Amino acid sequence: MPSIKRLSTLSDDFQSSLRTLLAFDASQDESIEHATAAILHDVRQRGDAAVLDYTRRYDRVAAASVPELEIDRREWQAALDALPSDQRAALETAAERVRRYHEHQRSQTWTYTEPDGTVLGQKVTPLDRVGLYVPGGKAAYPSSVLMNAIPAKVAGVPEVVMVTPTPDGVRNPIVLAAAAIGGVDRVWGMGGAQAVGALAYGTQSIDPVDKIVGPGNAYVAAAKRRVFGTVGIDMIAGPSEILVICDGTTPADWIAMDLFSQAEHDELAQAILLCPDAGYLDEVQAAIDRLLPTMPRADIIRASLGGRGALIHVRSLDEACEIANYIAPEHLEISTEQPGQWADKIRHAGAIFLGRYSSESLGDYCAGPNHVLPTSRTARFSSPLGVYDFQKRSSLIHISESGAQTLGRVAAKLAYGEGLQAHAASAEYRLNPTVSTA
Amino acid sequence: MPSIKRLSTLSDDFQSSLRTLLAFDASQDESIEHATAAILHDVRQRGDAAVLDYTRRYDRVAAASVPELEIDRREWQAALDALPSDQRAALETAAERVRRYHEHQRSQTWTYTEPDGTVLGQKVTPLDRVGLYVPGGKAAYPSSVLMNAIPAKVAGVPEVVMVTPTPDGVRNPIVLAAAAIGGVDRVWGMGGAQAVGALAYGTQSIDPVDKIVGPGNAYVAAAKRRVFGTVGIDMIAGPSEILVICDGTTPADWIAMDLFSQAEHDELAQAILLCPDAGYLDEVQAAIDRLLPTMPRADIIRASLGGRGALIHVRSLDEACEIANYIAPEHLEISTEQPGQWADKIRHAGAIFLGRYSSESLGDYCAGPNHVLPTSRTARFSSPLGVYDFQKRSSLIHISESGAQTLGRVAAKLAYGEGLQAHAASAEYRLNPTVSTA
Repeated sequence: MPSIKRLSTLSDDFQSSLRTLLAFDASQDESIEHATAAILHDVRQRGDAAVLDYTRRYDRVAAASVPELEIDRREWQAALDALPSDQRAALETAAERVRRYHEHQRSQTWTYTEPDGTVLGQKVTPLDRVGLYVPGGKAAYPSSVLMNAIPAKVAGVPEVVMVTPTPDGVRNPIVLAAAAIGGVDRVWGMGGAQAVGALAYGTQSIDPVDKIVGPGNAYVAAAKRRVFGTVGIDMIAGPSEILVICDGTTPADWIAMDLFSQAEHDELAQAILLCPDAGYLDEVQAAIDRLLPTMPRADIIRASLGGRGALIHVRSLDEACEIANYIAPEHLEISTEQPGQWADKIRHAGAIFLGRYSSESLGDYCAGPNHVLPTSRTARFSSPLGVYDFQKRSSLIHISESGAQTLGRVAAKLAYGEGLQAHAASAEYRLNPTVSTA
Repeated sequence: MPSIKRLSTLSDDFQSSLRTLLAFDASQDESIEHATAAILHDVRQRGDAAVLDYTRRYDRVAAASVPELEIDRREWQAALDALPSDQRAALETAAERVRRYHEHQRSQTWTYTEPDGTVLGQKVTPLDRVGLYVPGGKAAYPSSVLMNAIPAKVAGVPEVVMVTPTPDGVRNPIVLAAAAIGGVDRVWGMGGAQAVGALAYGTQSIDPVDKIVGPGNAYVAAAKRRVFGTVGIDMIAGPSEILVICDGTTPADWIAMDLFSQAEHDELAQAILLCPDAGYLDEVQAAIDRLLPTMPRADIIRASLGGRGALIHVRSLDEACEIANYIAPEHLEISTEQPGQWADKIRHAGAIFLGRYSSESLGDYCAGPNHVLPTSRTARFSSPLGVYDFQKRSSLIHISESGAQTLGRVAAKLAYGEGLQAHAASAEYRLNPTVSTA
């Protein structure tokens, strides 16, 4: 069995093959849904006591109180101080670059004044309190802490709290170090649906937050979906994806490794290469076969590439761009000469990596842009996590006395048309006023 | 029984009274959930045929094909031409003001170049295709057509399609006229969960959209919640709310009518007044009692004010602002002298109306800002509908050869720390390159 599928846009059945390749069963597991609903209900009813019970049951951590689950700032600082200096420097460089990039995303309050003195605008404010979920165990990535915490702090969120499970009481020092670098304000060692419930509803010991962000397992995702509306949430991420468009001039080993870097995340991750040069696709295929056995995560890569990967022969780079817009990939590498001309044709992608030096892995860690990106074709309508996810807007409407005379007539006319007489009267009361202007 | 509750922040039980007042049962009706899931599944499987069946069953419209359900642009234009000239002028004035305001919200692509030639930024693009749901019957508001369609068109969305049920084949001419003014591209006479399904999944005759916006009944809301992820959706709105902060200098009749204008929407709508002057609250109470019998929608207003309204005596305007931030109201009127000083203290509100001439009804129709606003305390983390809801962003990452040398080392260090060796290798391949810079 070949290590990765080959497709061609010249095939009659290409469209249906592509749809099959992209298909992903996102249906929700009913047993997880029920368990999650029960945990959330219990946390809402019993607060701290429920959190302690579930933490004991699932993480085998017995605490007498929720405050005991809090991880003190001195412990994060100690974790940071204990890091090897090159690792600490790398985290700090990444954090600084992420911060600098995200500062470009901050929105500002704006207003404008009309000739009659009416002022209109929009006030931009940060959220008050944000909860950051950080998975425990092997999926505990310090880079995720930075990518979620820094935009919130750049937005001006006064309090960013983090929850992370500590199975058997084991705390991940590099995650704690990242919390210190990322500007997190408080950390609790708790996870699962119970931690999501505690953040959404609040408990005796934990203040409710306004938004919950960060990745998690199926229970965490189900819990976030259920508390949405009570709090904001980020996107529920599907498996990670990379689409590479290559003109055949990048070393084949580089492209093979770029595909691996996506595939090594997860058996369900998707790595696809589009190229108009069939001979180059053969070279990449050979590089995959040669390099795969050398990879520590070869089994995951093999499952991912074999199940969901593809090398696709396209008629042209123009056609490749059309396919990219259909796929709306999370990550798009344009590994070509003069990549800008092709990037101009891309309408839908989470992140666009231009040129052969822009490997996705640089973006994952330290280029500056966020690595939390829309998956599963949602880049058609959504954006990378950013400062804008931690700010919100309030319309500002200050109608002058003079403005109320003209606008009141328009509003009343439309309100009568909609059968809303109190709306009309409320506008008409401001006509021919009997008091002076405010 | 008094027409509206009186509360005071001086009462010991004020906090719990306030929580009770704000409580709103947003639980979902299981029978609606099941019916909606079945309809969506059927539309996904059978496409046009399912849409025709449900339209026949629920709207009593028998069409031989989905294209027959399309309402031709000539019919909208005829509806527009047939409008009384003052009503047409009012709609056109409103549309023009809404357009002008929303043009301030358009985001632009940005990039910056680092000293080593690395370019970072964010590309802003409109969505390709947006679906606008417009309810039928009495809740068919032309102002909603404008408020949803115009931001999408200002964002540059090439195709805005509208669906609206036409029970018994009756088409609402003013809604069609608003579609013409708002720049809608196509209209189908269909509604309910079947229309949401057709927009989300596409059918033989209808191309799928990327986002669905607009209000609807419980079935429409349930359907939107279910297709979220396949397409984007706007917020699921709860009952509408107004919070008025008044210093007691605005004519009591004006404030009473402002409360009515919210209450007349719906028995579950919420209208609350905060004032430090107990005598003024008596005046407003008297105005309510005197004006209520004169209102055409008195029964709805009475149910709303009696069930969910309140006049609240506060210690000070400062305290009123604190309560407003807790409530995070959809609409906030600051009906005081020098309202700016109080608006500065407001962190959470969908729209802030400053001064006694800024009645909410002006904002509902024609001030310019959007009337689709976050309800049920969601202004803590979300924003008015805007141009930003119809644009999305793609990160731009163009690493120079020189940049890859420094960033590659940082990324590799962090990738090894996370156990992701392919990520590290992908970055390291770009070190000491063997090919020239792209």
